[in-house]
Amino acid sequence: MKKIVIIGSGNVAEALVFALRDTTYNVVQIVARNQKRGEYLAGLARCPYCDHTAELAPADIYILAVTDSVIAEVSQRFDFGNAVVAHTAGSVPIDVLSDKIINRAVLYPLQTFTAGRLVDFSKIPLFIEASTPHALDEIQNLAQKLSNSVRFTSSEQRAQIHLAAVFASNFTNYMYTVAEQILDEENMEFELLKPLIEECALKAVAAPSPRMTQTGPAVRGDDRTLEAHMSMIGDPKLKEIYRLLSESIWETLRKK
Amino acid sequence: MKKIVIIGSGNVAEALVFALRDTTYNVVQIVARNQKRGEYLAGLARCPYCDHTAELAPADIYILAVTDSVIAEVSQRFDFGNAVVAHTAGSVPIDVLSDKIINRAVLYPLQTFTAGRLVDFSKIPLFIEASTPHALDEIQNLAQKLSNSVRFTSSEQRAQIHLAAVFASNFTNYMYTVAEQILDEENMEFELLKPLIEECALKAVAAPSPRMTQTGPAVRGDDRTLEAHMSMIGDPKLKEIYRLLSESIWETLRKK
Repeated sequence: MKKIVIIGSGNVAEALVFALRDTTYNVVQIVARNQKRGEYLAGLARCPYCDHTAELAPADIYILAVTDSVIAEVSQRFDFGNAVVAHTAGSVPIDVLSDKIINRAVLYPLQTFTAGRLVDFSKIPLFIEASTPHALDEIQNLAQKLSNSVRFTSSEQRAQIHLAAVFASNFTNYMYTVAEQILDEENMEFELLKPLIEECALKAVAAPSPRMTQTGPAVRGDDRTLEAHMSMIGDPKLKEIYRLLSESIWETLRKK
Repeated sequence: MKKIVIIGSGNVAEALVFALRDTTYNVVQIVARNQKRGEYLAGLARCPYCDHTAELAPADIYILAVTDSVIAEVSQRFDFGNAVVAHTAGSVPIDVLSDKIINRAVLYPLQTFTAGRLVDFSKIPLFIEASTPHALDEIQNLAQKLSNSVRFTSSEQRAQIHLAAVFASNFTNYMYTVAEQILDEENMEFELLKPLIEECALKAVAAPSPRMTQTGPAVRGDDRTLEAHMSMIGDPKLKEIYRLLSESIWETLRKK
């Protein structure tokens, strides 16, 4: 049984702990600064929790599920020996991991993780990368146990995927927030938008391409409505977002 | 049993035909330019199809489920007598309906409709408006038979709701399209983004507010990743969208 140590206690670490429970991999230690979260994850994994000053337990794979900006530092702090050390970030190149580590790897799950929300890990696309044949072997085996969708990608490709994810997820969520603000001005609650938000995502996911599910005044070239909307938006930055997105939709997807 | 004539054969008309099948309302005629779609809807409703030059069947309520830009014209073309005439558009004021019509009304469903995709109409928020007490009575009764979420709103409020819907749905779908383009450049398929897109919408819908589910480099103020992303985007308009949305996320939702 392969041994895994997880360093970090955020939402990715939590999702990994849950997903690894159904595999032959054994999580033997949770290392984290945040004691409360660390102990919670250790409880789930039935293994010891240690803070970041402790000594690492021996393992085959160390997963650094920490914030992007501290990956380099954490990778330098410990002596990992010949074990595989993998980070989980989309936009961080593999060589940010300390060059003292021989078997470097990346395991990037293309998903948004929220504390307390269980997702089906087997459907999450995993993008892997490795610095040696041994690291590749180990990370590929692990990835294939966790998910049915595993691809080998370079750091550059992974960065592009992460950029795409920012549009598909972070910017999308911000569109919901703007919509909430607009309703708020009329004293109407976000609740009203929920059926629309859900259906809009589900229909895009059911289609071969979101180009086929674009609707609204911009793609129709409905200038009357576009102008009316522009005149209704007070905030200059929001106005600019509306203008830019509508223009871009028209230029990319116009009908006729 | 109240009689309804539906003018129009688009996706809203289709959704209404489906939803009305479970009610005590009787669709007695489908009037549409598009013969194929009109006949299809008439088949579903088990009523005659007529093209737009035909005479209207007598009815209690005429629903104009036509494109925004032709509502005025269609409302002038026929003699509706004392019946209630309702349009279904978010951004069209009630008084765009011909002033020869006494009992004008609006029935705006806040949802995106796609041919062939059935949605649960009972959960769709319906926004109604009416020009007379009789029209209000009729449209309210109809709306409450169709949905559990019915509100009376002015044309101005309805326009705001429609603006919010453009952000929550049309702009969101465009974010998916941009994400698809970015993956396409790496020869990767849109398919890979589907679990992310679905989860992103479902978690926003599960939360009290999308402000609480914002993640990503912009809200963290992760300048290194923001700069890396900016340098990866070639298209100037897309670059501007990335910059503007990231700035706006930071200004509105920043953490710390």
